[in-house]
Amino acid sequence: MIRKIFTLLLSLSTLLTASAQQNLWQRDYSTSPVVNDDKSVTLRLYAPEARSVVAEGDFTTEPMAMMRREDGVWEVTTAPLPSELYTYRFTVDGMCNVNDPSNSYVMRDVGTQMNYFIIPGERGNLYAAQQVPHGTVARVWADAGDGRERRMVVYTPAGYEDSRRKYPVLYLLHGMGGDEEAWSATGRMAEIMDNLIATRRAEPMIVVMTNGCMRHVSAPGYSEEGMWRPYMSGSMDGSFEALFPGIVAWVDSHYRTKAKKASRAIAGLSMGGFHTLHISMEYPTMFDYVGLFSAAVMRQKEGVEIYAHLEEKLAHQFDEGMKLYWIAIGKDDFLYEENVAYRALLDKEQYPYSYYESEGGHTWRNWRVYLVEFATQLFK
Amino acid sequence: MIRKIFTLLLSLSTLLTASAQQNLWQRDYSTSPVVNDDKSVTLRLYAPEARSVVAEGDFTTEPMAMMRREDGVWEVTTAPLPSELYTYRFTVDGMCNVNDPSNSYVMRDVGTQMNYFIIPGERGNLYAAQQVPHGTVARVWADAGDGRERRMVVYTPAGYEDSRRKYPVLYLLHGMGGDEEAWSATGRMAEIMDNLIATRRAEPMIVVMTNGCMRHVSAPGYSEEGMWRPYMSGSMDGSFEALFPGIVAWVDSHYRTKAKKASRAIAGLSMGGFHTLHISMEYPTMFDYVGLFSAAVMRQKEGVEIYAHLEEKLAHQFDEGMKLYWIAIGKDDFLYEENVAYRALLDKEQYPYSYYESEGGHTWRNWRVYLVEFATQLFK
Repeated sequence: MIRKIFTLLLSLSTLLTASAQQNLWQRDYSTSPVVNDDKSVTLRLYAPEARSVVAEGDFTTEPMAMMRREDGVWEVTTAPLPSELYTYRFTVDGMCNVNDPSNSYVMRDVGTQMNYFIIPGERGNLYAAQQVPHGTVARVWADAGDGRERRMVVYTPAGYEDSRRKYPVLYLLHGMGGDEEAWSATGRMAEIMDNLIATRRAEPMIVVMTNGCMRHVSAPGYSEEGMWRPYMSGSMDGSFEALFPGIVAWVDSHYRTKAKKASRAIAGLSMGGFHTLHISMEYPTMFDYVGLFSAAVMRQKEGVEIYAHLEEKLAHQFDEGMKLYWIAIGKDDFLYEENVAYRALLDKEQYPYSYYESEGGHTWRNWRVYLVEFATQLFK
Repeated sequence: MIRKIFTLLLSLSTLLTASAQQNLWQRDYSTSPVVNDDKSVTLRLYAPEARSVVAEGDFTTEPMAMMRREDGVWEVTTAPLPSELYTYRFTVDGMCNVNDPSNSYVMRDVGTQMNYFIIPGERGNLYAAQQVPHGTVARVWADAGDGRERRMVVYTPAGYEDSRRKYPVLYLLHGMGGDEEAWSATGRMAEIMDNLIATRRAEPMIVVMTNGCMRHVSAPGYSEEGMWRPYMSGSMDGSFEALFPGIVAWVDSHYRTKAKKASRAIAGLSMGGFHTLHISMEYPTMFDYVGLFSAAVMRQKEGVEIYAHLEEKLAHQFDEGMKLYWIAIGKDDFLYEENVAYRALLDKEQYPYSYYESEGGHTWRNWRVYLVEFATQLFK
């Protein structure tokens, strides 16, 4: 049998070099990335004729020069890294954004594919699949009332299929340039929720990730718009906010939800934080938990009714009350100052909210942390 | 408002160059790929200091040399191409497997990320999302009876969520090195099924894509095994075949299926064709439709009971009868000769089967066609 398998593999590797076959059995030039015992990472790239190769990633403030080995593989090892999910790419002789062909793990953010790796430890383990019960992640199409089916990603927690139980719902919104895939891909939503729920840090909940860029009905490539190049687009004209009750109604009629304010949360990052602010304020009896992650809070377009009368609507919302109004931002975020201004507005009226300030800026690294912090406070 | 948005974008593009921000707003060096009016394709790569850049893809038998423009962008235009989904990558100064950073569309096959594009037309349009009702694609975890939850991709057709109707099921199996993601990613399963069902070429059906590599419970990265590098592994030891009734039982108990032979189909490519052969033969009352796509039909491991007594079991299977036993292979496939031998074995006993011979070899290009051809014959 060993011989037969060997013969099979041999025939595969020999024959599949022909262009008529799938060319998967190519030579392995290097092993990359390698997480070392001391939690440093070694990156490698086979580039035999290159004169300069550097690695760029969110583990380093400056590009890291790589060194050429005799066999044409360029190599660099980082300092030991804190536990985290990191992304990286290479620049080779001025050609930038080169993916690591030895690393088949990529995540797309807007139009950019980045390689990634995870350093184990408290933080990184939250973002990696563990041996715990896993929820279901579904791509579904829903007409929320505007006559167009739009794509959503819906997470149902482990056990959903095998019970008659009803669940609370977190609506999780992406930023400008993002789409319904952003939170599950780059945001590690499913891994985070699986791990938090399994360790009883979070309640079992459904998570609904919509597409908040109304000019599209889906992430790139999944609709008849074809393979357009993702770019920094969004919707800040009130149309997404107006559609939201239809989204909630669709979810409540298609999933076993606890269809009440006490069992609904909404949160979003950047533009999604802006959406969250206005949706939660426009429909003050809908959500008991509101999360503004690095939110573009002060970007109201004039002349749009749904953005008008901010202070009156806020008064109404806080009059109705809610269990948690949670604002999070990094010290280096370019939206930091407008969040200061927004909090001053809340403070002036003594509206109760929680505030979480982190290091860093407008990054997924922060948004993953905010999701963890927010999710663990919900539906208790 | 325009001014405010402009200011926002300006502040994004200015401030996000700082490493504390998400680095998405990088300069666009080139637009690639471009599908031209005559259905040729122009590929471009910014590589200012390179001395040689070639494009490789399944649209060309020989690597295509690219020409350097004055601005450092290398460029090549193909001949007009037949309508199809094509994959490609670049080689730059001997550094191979370079992805196109201007193209955010990639598909993974085993451990390889490839960029792709689609040439519109009859074939390509089947693989691209169209404005038709879309099914749901869900990643679910199921314990089929071996005490381990394993990940599956399940397609439910448009309308499933809004009806009480029961549906037939197609079980669709991947090849060696593949996993439960292979058919939906590289195989374009959801686009194909959406398009065939919408045009009434195929019946609405559920499609279940399992992981047939038993040493893993999921595609790379989705289980506690961590971020292992995908390689050419499979299961041809009888364990997957033995588990299959448990998979079918799980699907029948969790979806609204027509739980009978007349409403079940099974098909697989390469190793998945081998699995299909043995599963359909071992459980001859389970499937009325059997598809062997470029199947590794003659790879039986000696000493495994489930692979023994081939001719007796085949006699039993064809005695029970079925509506379709469909064998497809390309003329250049390295498994062609063993499929000839297998058909001779069927012919000798005058077992009825359908045979579809295509051009080409052991490629996804063929397997997508086989899925189209097979799916349109099911459950009529």
